[in-house]
This record gives sequence, structure tokens and C-alpha cells, in this order.
Amino acid sequence: IVNFYISPFPDLLPTCNGEITTMSFLQDVVDILLQYVVKSFDRSTKVIDFHYPNELLQEYNWELADQPQTLEEILLNCRTTLKYAIKTGHPRYFNQLSTGLDMVGLAADWLTSAANTNMFTYEIAPVFVLLEYVTLRKMREMVGWPGGCGDGIFSPGGAISNMYAMLIARFKMFPEVKEKGMAAIPRLVAFTSEHSHFSVKKGAAALGIGTDSVILIRCDERGKMIPSDLERRIVEAKQKGFVPFLVSATAGTTVYGAFDPLIAIADICKKYKIWMHVDGAWGGGLLMSRKHKWKLNGIERANSVTWNPHKMMGVPLQCSALLVREEGLMQSCNQMHASYLFQQDKHYDLSYDTGDKALQCGRHVDVFKLWLMWRAKGTTGFEAQIDKCLELAEYLYNKIKNREGYEMVFDGKPQHTNVCFWYIPPSLRGMEDSEERTSRLMKVAPVIKARMMEYGTTMVSYQPLGDKVNFFRMVISNPAATHQDIDFLIDEIERLGQDL
Amino acid sequence: IVNFYISPFPDLLPTCNGEITTMSFLQDVVDILLQYVVKSFDRSTKVIDFHYPNELLQEYNWELADQPQTLEEILLNCRTTLKYAIKTGHPRYFNQLSTGLDMVGLAADWLTSAANTNMFTYEIAPVFVLLEYVTLRKMREMVGWPGGCGDGIFSPGGAISNMYAMLIARFKMFPEVKEKGMAAIPRLVAFTSEHSHFSVKKGAAALGIGTDSVILIRCDERGKMIPSDLERRIVEAKQKGFVPFLVSATAGTTVYGAFDPLIAIADICKKYKIWMHVDGAWGGGLLMSRKHKWKLNGIERANSVTWNPHKMMGVPLQCSALLVREEGLMQSCNQMHASYLFQQDKHYDLSYDTGDKALQCGRHVDVFKLWLMWRAKGTTGFEAQIDKCLELAEYLYNKIKNREGYEMVFDGKPQHTNVCFWYIPPSLRGMEDSEERTSRLMKVAPVIKARMMEYGTTMVSYQPLGDKVNFFRMVISNPAATHQDIDFLIDEIERLGQDL
Repeated sequence: IVNFYISPFPDLLPTCNGEITTMSFLQDVVDILLQYVVKSFDRSTKVIDFHYPNELLQEYNWELADQPQTLEEILLNCRTTLKYAIKTGHPRYFNQLSTGLDMVGLAADWLTSAANTNMFTYEIAPVFVLLEYVTLRKMREMVGWPGGCGDGIFSPGGAISNMYAMLIARFKMFPEVKEKGMAAIPRLVAFTSEHSHFSVKKGAAALGIGTDSVILIRCDERGKMIPSDLERRIVEAKQKGFVPFLVSATAGTTVYGAFDPLIAIADICKKYKIWMHVDGAWGGGLLMSRKHKWKLNGIERANSVTWNPHKMMGVPLQCSALLVREEGLMQSCNQMHASYLFQQDKHYDLSYDTGDKALQCGRHVDVFKLWLMWRAKGTTGFEAQIDKCLELAEYLYNKIKNREGYEMVFDGKPQHTNVCFWYIPPSLRGMEDSEERTSRLMKVAPVIKARMMEYGTTMVSYQPLGDKVNFFRMVISNPAATHQDIDFLIDEIERLGQDL
Repeated sequence: IVNFYISPFPDLLPTCNGEITTMSFLQDVVDILLQYVVKSFDRSTKVIDFHYPNELLQEYNWELADQPQTLEEILLNCRTTLKYAIKTGHPRYFNQLSTGLDMVGLAADWLTSAANTNMFTYEIAPVFVLLEYVTLRKMREMVGWPGGCGDGIFSPGGAISNMYAMLIARFKMFPEVKEKGMAAIPRLVAFTSEHSHFSVKKGAAALGIGTDSVILIRCDERGKMIPSDLERRIVEAKQKGFVPFLVSATAGTTVYGAFDPLIAIADICKKYKIWMHVDGAWGGGLLMSRKHKWKLNGIERANSVTWNPHKMMGVPLQCSALLVREEGLMQSCNQMHASYLFQQDKHYDLSYDTGDKALQCGRHVDVFKLWLMWRAKGTTGFEAQIDKCLELAEYLYNKIKNREGYEMVFDGKPQHTNVCFWYIPPSLRGMEDSEERTSRLMKVAPVIKARMMEYGTTMVSYQPLGDKVNFFRMVISNPAATHQDIDFLIDEIERLGQDL
């Protein structure tokens, strides 16, 4: 039998004597990446070199073919991909809750790729499984659960973490649902605020609960859930014969950055014996700050918490944790005892084989980048970085709150880094509130945003909300940003919007 | 206002003039990684330097602290992490369906980390969104859907892909489930084989269908679903008033590597109007091989297909695709119209904002590594690599089928790279089939496996299945493996097991 391997690159590993070519190829790629990284932080480069989808499809041949390409062509593919990529680490990229590019986080992600393993068992990911254990315990400590006790998992994003919470809350109340399904249990209802993340409804749809069974609680003008409305709706639901099983409070809403009043909500959950979940995907990071963590007071009374270090803590995507106060529940809820993975006669302590508590089978190693960044910065380093971003948001707020041509969407100092505002072009200033003004104002932010992308100078998000037409939602999670970048953003909005 | 940023590493980017330190730090990390990569392929190094969990916790201080560490310490953390990691690219690591370390895949994953973006909109991931479009279309072409038409998404693993299929199948039949939940629709049942992956049940538990509503169809002695049993159970379920909504066939079962008879199953699904899903997480890769793709004949009749390039195609973890024949269904099923993400008044073609078809909100870029590997190898390169792994499996089968001390778990040439066998130590050879023999044989594989890990020379999986006690399940998905590595495995099993 001939022992052949037809490799398109006979010189790359695993071919024998492939070391030299491999090292040189990977080094070439790294050189391209280092250049990109340095450029990402350079304010003289564009955030984005924008092309419309049909243009981008034509700029380069992206198609997949039968025949291999050369290593030179592969390097060209890399350069071309980066040419059209958004520089998400750029100090003037404010478009999402996840921005920035942490150097230690990047290094950790590169190591994760080289280790290329899976989180299901200690057997194949010994270090990463231990680090997940250490890191989740530390996060639970910061939530305020004594000794960091409890359970948890890193999941592929906040939406999935929130879905886990809903899944576990349902199982806690009606464990028979696992075998018998929703047909065997009463009609459930969940509660969350009208400003909460859409993943709560998405989860309810997926889990067979239905979006109609997610009751949206009213918010005050700052976007915080009104506890009295929550209690009223719980009582109402019970009177109709429904079973309230979950309240999902939000610590840091997506648009306003509002923190629901967790203590009042905890009291209500306790009174009615309802699982209290806190979606702190965005706001959880403030637990690292001695100055700001009071905004999450009451979180220690939650049954579960979503916290995405890939947002406010600047960990590379993805890194989202679900923390659960009661140990063992996730395992009972999700385990299927696959004997080919979770053999019970292994020679080591099986409590480290955590895979069966997940909905996923294979699970990417998301912990290492957070762990390494935490080692590098210490809790105090995260604190400094987060305090800085909040200080920048306050700077922006102070700058525009009384400035001509700006209207704030809600009054008062922002609680998180979200600053929501309308830019009013000169032509609309002084115009009375009317249908015409509203319909013209609605178009301002989209046009400015489109121009920003075409010039490539900066990016910031906008959206309508309820009866409020399109407004800018500025957020800051990139410690690379400075006061000058905030000044730049305001100048740019005015430059691009003055003729509207 | 002072524009300060208290960084634990004032010399790393984004601090100004941080380029030099950053480049040198990242280069140091890359040097550590390149050394690890080269060692991964070196047969004279161990696959694993095994330590029990409590030992590993004591070998190093893994704890998280308030204070930052130095860059030197960060490099030491990286070295220590890799010291205890499993070399999943090692030619003698056969433990999982995902093995190997592809150099182009690794480079692509490093680029993905540097680009650090999110798949929800074209706005923030223009290239990656286009590449997902191009790659999924190509995969659908290979499945056999005319022109590559249809829909799909990359999801965080096969279990989630399978859950998507169940979710979409349910929605297709009863779209009202999204709002009204399971309470509003009849009792559903799904069918899958007794050898199928546990994620089908896990999905049913999560979606509120319940594991009792997953009916396990009998398999023949090769692990293939028996179509007549499927039809019988469908008829039976309907007679009981249940509504069959999904058949999940498997193309490449986890343990036996069996391919369910897809054509016969498609006929049954058509007859009873049931959604046909094919879980090709493991076997899908064979679609790249002109020699082996016949094993998936009939897959073109499926309504949805799970296919994990991170398994048989050697793409770094994670890379799993769900393909759906009907376009638009995923979007209708999952969309929640979050206006802060999916603004309807953007200036580009919104059909590229694919985020609302996902269950996830944020979604990691999993496509680039597959796309770049495909460019590098071409379809023919993947084909050569897969054919080689199958040839190695056949070599192993031929070597042990008549060898003293081996018993095959099922007869005949393997259809995939799974080779399932018992090693019978000399003390059990010739012993009559008895309770004693069974109970002693049960312990053989776990002991040999534990010894393999302690010596660190190789790793292969074992498990019981039904009434069959612990047997080895050998799988080959790493193109680095050679005939000599197969010979080594057999020698090692005999060396470690002869005294049992």
C-alpha cells in the first residue's frame, strides 16, 4: 500500500520537512495581521472602506473552485479580506456594544486557535476546563454569591445565555418538561421590560413557550422597568391561570443603557416565587468598577445572570457567560448521558467533564482570552478601562446636552456609556413639532450614517424606539477612544448633517 | 479634563507609540505558538502530558487577581497553558471526530481574531457576510440542490444546527407556534435512529417538545436506520393522534460511522409529508469525494442538512453549517425585527443583513477558515485528504479483522473512518462467552485508555453501546496520520493491554 497524501501544498505541515515553509507562511500571515492591527489604531486610516454588496462581489473573485490556489494567492486573499474589513478596533468605531481590539485578548485567541480543542471534557481540554472553572467562580464572586458558589457556562453569545436561563428556570419549576414537553405543564409566562433585548422573545419562541407569553413591562422615561407594573402584570397573569416562571431584568439595556431596579424586582420575584434572571450582557462589566457597580445592586439575589465580557470588558468575540446560583441544575436540565463522550469509568474526577450541561455538544474555547486578559490587567485594570469609557460618555453628554442642534432622547446623566440623541440640522431648528418635522428628522440619522460609512471616518449606530424616530445611540466600549475622538464624532455629525 | 488611560501595560496599543512593544509582544506569542505547532506534528513528542485535575490545579497558580501581571508573566501563562494542552494536531491523536491542525485554517482563524467582528450585519462584516453567502451556496450545490439555491447559516456546532432544523421544521408545519407556543398546536413527534446523535433529544427537550416525543427507530447490525421500522412507527404515532413533523436521518453516525438509507427515508418522508433532516455533521465531508459521496445518495431530497466542516474536513473548531432547502423560512421562523440592529432604512441591500435568521444575536465569524482552506486546497484537495483518511481506516480494518486478539463490533468494511473493535487480552482469549468474560472485557478499554493517557503516546476513544460492552472506536480525520501511525496504535494497544 502506498502511503500517499496528495496535498495542494506539499511543503506545508503535516508533510514531513514542512516546518520551514510552514513557519515562513504563518509568519507572512502574521506580518499582514500585525500591520492591520497597527493600522486599526491609526486615526489617519479609515474605519471602513465601504462598498455596496454588488460592488464588493465584483471587486475580487471570491468564488470557490475545484483547484487549489498557491500560497501567494492565499496571502492575497488575506490582504484583500482585511482591505474591506471594518476596523473594529479603530478608536472612532462606535457602532456596536463590542468594539476595540485588546492585544492580550488577541494573543490569547491566537493561542486558542493553535490549541484547537473542544470544551466538552477534561480529557481533551484539561487546562481550558480548569480555567473555565476558575473564571466562572471569580465572576460569581463579583456577582456577590458567597464564595463564588454556583454554576455556569460560557455560551456563544448573550442571546443563547438568556435562552439557557429561560430553559433552566422552566426546568426548575417543572422538571417533567424535559421528557414530556410543554404539553404536560401549565401555560407559562415570562416578564421582561419593553426595553429588554429581543433575545428574550426569541428564546420563548424557540423553547415552545411562544412570544405571546412574554409580557413586556412598562419602563420609565429612562428605560428602567417599573416594578409596580411588573407586579400588576404578574397578578393579572395568575388570575388568568397562567404560571409566571421567569422575570428577566436587564442591567444595561441595549439602546438606553438603563439598569432595571434589581432590588425591587428581587422582592417581587421572592414574593411570587419566580426565577429572577438578570441580563447583564452589556452592563455586567460594571461589576468590575468600585465606582459604578452600585447600579447592579440586587444582582446577588438573581437566580441567573448573563454577562458578556466581549462587550464592556473588551474581550474578543465571542465571550458570554451564563451564571447560575444553584449548582447542578444545568446538568440535570440538559444532560443526555452520551456514553461515547461522558464515559463513567474514566480514571479522573468526572466532575470536570462539564459538556453535558451544555445545549451544545462541541463548544469553542471562549474562556482563555478572558482569563489571560484578566491576568494581564488584573481586576483593577478592567476597572480603569471601564471607568474611562464611562467618563468619556459623560464627557459626550456634557458636551451636547445644551449644544445647539442637539436634543437628548432622555434627560439626565447616562448610567452606562449609552448617550442617545437627535442631531437637528439647521433647517429643522426652531421648527414647530409637526408631522413634517418628525418625518424629516426621521431621515437625518440614516443619511448621516450612510455618509459616515462612505467617507469611512467613523461609525455610530442609530435606531427608532417606540414613538421616537431615528436617533443616534452612541456607545463607548473601546478604551482606545479619547476625548478628541468624541469631539471628532460631533464635528463629523455636524459636517455631514448641516445641509439636511 | 485630563485624558488619561490607566493601562496595566502602558506600552501596548492602544497607548500611543505602543506599536513597537505590541509588535514584539505579539511576535513573542507567535514564536511560542509556532514552536507548539511544529511540535504537534512531531511523533517523538507526547500527545498529552497528563495530570489529574487536582494535580494540574497545583502545578501552577491559575487564579485571577486584582493586580496586573507583567508581559513576561503573560508569556509564561501561554507557555504553561500549552505545556498541559492536548496536541490535537498530533498524528496519533484519534480521540475525537475533530482532529488535526490545518495550517491555512489556523492562519485564517488568526485573521478572524484580528478582524474581531460579528456576523449580524453586512455593515460590520461585509466580507465575511459575502463569504458566508458564497460558501453556503457552494455547500448546497454539493448537497445537490439545483444552483445551490436555498438558505443556511453557520452555527456554533452540530447540536445547535440540528436544533435549528427541528425548530424550522416545527415552524414550517405550525407557524403559529412562534407566538402561541406548544400549547396551541397538536402533540408533535420526531423520529431518529437509536444510533443517532444525542443532540436530537437535547433539542427536543429544549424546544419544549420533550424527549419522550423523539421516537428511536431500530438500526440494522451496521447501525443504519431500518426504513420499515420508521414507517411502522410513523403509522403508529399517527394512530395515537400524534403529528409526525421531523425525521432526522444520520449520514455518518458518531460511533459506527453508519449512513442511514436516505433514499428510502426520503420516500417515507414524502409519503407522510414529514420534514426530512439529514444530520451529516460527521459524514457530510464525504460529499467532497467522488469516490465516497454515493453513501449520501438521497441527501438532495432532504429539507435540511447539518454538515460540520470542523470534523471530516479538518477545519479548526468551530465550523458547522445548517443548510435549508426552502429560502426565507429561517428568517420567518427566527426574526424579531430588532430595530437597533436591522434598521430598514439603511443605504445598502438589506438582504445581506442575515442576523435575524439566527437564534444567536452576536455570531462568531466561523466561515473564513473554511473559505480560505477551500481556496487553498480546492475541492480536489479536500477530496484527496478525505479519501486518504478513508483509505487509512480500511487499512486498519484489514489489519485487525483477522488478527489474533481482536473482535470487530460489526462485520464488513467501514463506510466512514470509524473502526469499532474489542481488543481481547491474552487472558480472555479462548474464554467462553460468559458473565465473567463480559465483565472483564468491559474493563479492558478503559484501562488501556488510561494507560495511553498516562504515557501520552496516543489517544483513542472507547464506549459501550446498547448491549455491547466498552469497545474502541477508532476514527481518522487528521490527514497527518499515516499507515505507520495506525501500526503504532495497534502495537500500543497490545503493549498496554497484554497483561490485562
